[in-house]
Amino acid sequence: MHKHISEQYDNDLQTIRDLLMEMGGLVETQVNDACTALVNHDVELAEQVREVESRLNQFEVELDDQCVSIIAKRQPTAGDLRTVVSVMKVITDLERIGDEADRIAKMAIDLLDADILDDHYSGFKAIHSGVIKMLKRALDAFARLDVENALRVIEDDHDIDTAYKKLVRNCIKQMENNPDKVEDYVSLIWASRALERIGDHAKNISEYVIYQVKGQDVRHASSLDN
Amino acid sequence: MHKHISEQYDNDLQTIRDLLMEMGGLVETQVNDACTALVNHDVELAEQVREVESRLNQFEVELDDQCVSIIAKRQPTAGDLRTVVSVMKVITDLERIGDEADRIAKMAIDLLDADILDDHYSGFKAIHSGVIKMLKRALDAFARLDVENALRVIEDDHDIDTAYKKLVRNCIKQMENNPDKVEDYVSLIWASRALERIGDHAKNISEYVIYQVKGQDVRHASSLDN
Repeated sequence: MHKHISEQYDNDLQTIRDLLMEMGGLVETQVNDACTALVNHDVELAEQVREVESRLNQFEVELDDQCVSIIAKRQPTAGDLRTVVSVMKVITDLERIGDEADRIAKMAIDLLDADILDDHYSGFKAIHSGVIKMLKRALDAFARLDVENALRVIEDDHDIDTAYKKLVRNCIKQMENNPDKVEDYVSLIWASRALERIGDHAKNISEYVIYQVKGQDVRHASSLDN
Repeated sequence: MHKHISEQYDNDLQTIRDLLMEMGGLVETQVNDACTALVNHDVELAEQVREVESRLNQFEVELDDQCVSIIAKRQPTAGDLRTVVSVMKVITDLERIGDEADRIAKMAIDLLDADILDDHYSGFKAIHSGVIKMLKRALDAFARLDVENALRVIEDDHDIDTAYKKLVRNCIKQMENNPDKVEDYVSLIWASRALERIGDHAKNISEYVIYQVKGQDVRHASSLDN
């Protein structure tokens, strides 16, 4: 009987971890689709991202509910409690990544008729591929409780910040030289900002991997260095 | 004995609510100081905001710890569990409001020597006062579990979004006419964007008031309208 209950409990924990990974996969697709829509001027794909966003919101509410119900029914402690708490925090990060993907999709629609040279999208594409790598690695580290990969994500965030700042400087230069294109470049800056924020969320997710494994809160450990 | 434990338990719950309010007060001051620094070109105040930010991060970690320890020790259910979960979610929102205040302080430093007419700060000032009103009301609603005021915050968020969009349009016009001031106006847009995000977080906090009182998750209830 005791074993039976404990198996059910393990199943419950595994279920919320699996659902979180499913939500993570959906979020990753949203980010990729939104960026592809922006670079390829693909209005249909952008609109699709905006529609899927509401499904993600539903996901968040349901998954949060399941976590609360596990705490209420199973009264987890120590490592199991850290798992549930981490999942609840990561849900928020994933939902906010979904919001950022939605913002990129909005910008993709604003930029449909934009007269921006392909060259100027290259900085955006580079940040996109860097951020997707971070997000994949963060989710993978969460699934496998892999501290080493989690730490790599935290390191990679610096590179994204640097690339982002360079892109903004480049856009500002373009606006100074082409004042008639200010509106388009502001949209491109917004979309890049959204990507940079997605990188921050991937970093948050990685910090919860370390919290789960080591029971140690590494958030802001280096905040005095920033 | 039972009464004694239950009193301790109530004290624990009250303690995390009180600490959350203290964190809320600190965050509110940070937002006000950052905006004042920006409008008054006050470098000392801006630097002070940036220093206090690390204290807020510490607050977040400690308060999260206390919540986890209450769940582990007291194993709350139903309404009490909703309280602890809400506090944990609101901690994240408050910490991110602190991040936005820090971003505004950074922009205040970037804008120290900016040649922006006082008139153009007026849109920013209006959003600042609207957002602070929302934040105060959201925290007050959380302290008193006041659903009516929480709903008002959610309504007010629309006005902030409208004012923000108007300010961005105005800045874009300024940049088109004064390409030499592009960099300054981009900074002003960033700072306004940070304020708009603070409004979103105040809205999130209000949604957790309703979740606590009614046990009903209102997040994204109107997401299809957006």
